[in-house]
Amino acid sequence: MRIIIIGATGTIGKHVVNALAENNEIVKVGSKSGDYQVNLTDTASIKNLFEQVGPFDALVSVAGDGHFGPLTSMTDADFRVGINSKLMGQVNLVLIGQHYINPKGSFTLTSGSLGEDPIVLGSSLSTINSALDAFAKAAAIELENGVRINTVGPDVVEESPAYFPFFPGHIPVSMHRVAQAYVKSVLGAQTGQAYKIL
Amino acid sequence: MRIIIIGATGTIGKHVVNALAENNEIVKVGSKSGDYQVNLTDTASIKNLFEQVGPFDALVSVAGDGHFGPLTSMTDADFRVGINSKLMGQVNLVLIGQHYINPKGSFTLTSGSLGEDPIVLGSSLSTINSALDAFAKAAAIELENGVRINTVGPDVVEESPAYFPFFPGHIPVSMHRVAQAYVKSVLGAQTGQAYKIL
Repeated sequence: MRIIIIGATGTIGKHVVNALAENNEIVKVGSKSGDYQVNLTDTASIKNLFEQVGPFDALVSVAGDGHFGPLTSMTDADFRVGINSKLMGQVNLVLIGQHYINPKGSFTLTSGSLGEDPIVLGSSLSTINSALDAFAKAAAIELENGVRINTVGPDVVEESPAYFPFFPGHIPVSMHRVAQAYVKSVLGAQTGQAYKIL
Repeated sequence: MRIIIIGATGTIGKHVVNALAENNEIVKVGSKSGDYQVNLTDTASIKNLFEQVGPFDALVSVAGDGHFGPLTSMTDADFRVGINSKLMGQVNLVLIGQHYINPKGSFTLTSGSLGEDPIVLGSSLSTINSALDAFAKAAAIELENGVRINTVGPDVVEESPAYFPFFPGHIPVSMHRVAQAYVKSVLGAQTGQAYKIL
């Protein structure tokens, strides 16, 4: 299977690469690193990526920025960092990528736990995470040629200790459990699911 | 109580106005009609609205456009119609309005049923509806001075028969039930809730 991984060198991405490397061809993509580069906030850059990479069987996105800060001083511009990157960047990987993916392929996007379980400073990311879960649920009933789509939504992960103080009472999740959720999405057969790793 | 209603002359909005009119001062706002006008896609227009209206106790938004069409031909520009209007328009009513609303006031935004219950052609609206529900849940834990926020998410409503063919098997909901959900949000005491009218 030929698998594109966007964010392949990130905290989660490198574990997803390792978990899927055996028996598959991994195409590593990053904003600056990897076999190919993409700017998720630029639809021309996304289209160019698919033109360069050619046919593929699965796309995993573990990428996208968002604003983390207080609601009381949040602005439209703050909020749109995540709208343009984590939300529309990943949505556009599907809107554009659906025209390049092989039949029976799959898209796996990254949301998070904050939609259902908000924390202070996280309102923009809560919004974007639930948006992505709903997009996958809805897109699953329209994608053609047996193409599937799921999201993986991890709680704070064990390799991001800098975030722990912002997640009081959350038990950081292991990289193994998170990476296996991506494996489940890619190698399993479900579609329209939001895999929450809590 | 002084209540701003955005979309006051719309299909749902006029029923919300009627349901809340007794014992309250209603400030009707529309894109072209009403006591005041606002362009939800323009943060300067939203700020100007609050400057003109002055202090208020509740804001109800029953407004916002979105794209309805097939995923297979959907573009970034299509998707952003709803991102800019129904999602960020309503989010910005809160981000900006939180600095104008009276203590113990409330925001009530409109989402819908499609986030949990998608239909063909509805992927953009599914995304936006769940985004709004999550925004309200997250914003509720950060809004200050006792200010509350909820969403109302109706299924297809009985006064929109043109939409019925796109909602097979859905039982259109009565305008009375929908309007009362807004009353519950404004006159009740709950916060961070997504009232689904199914």
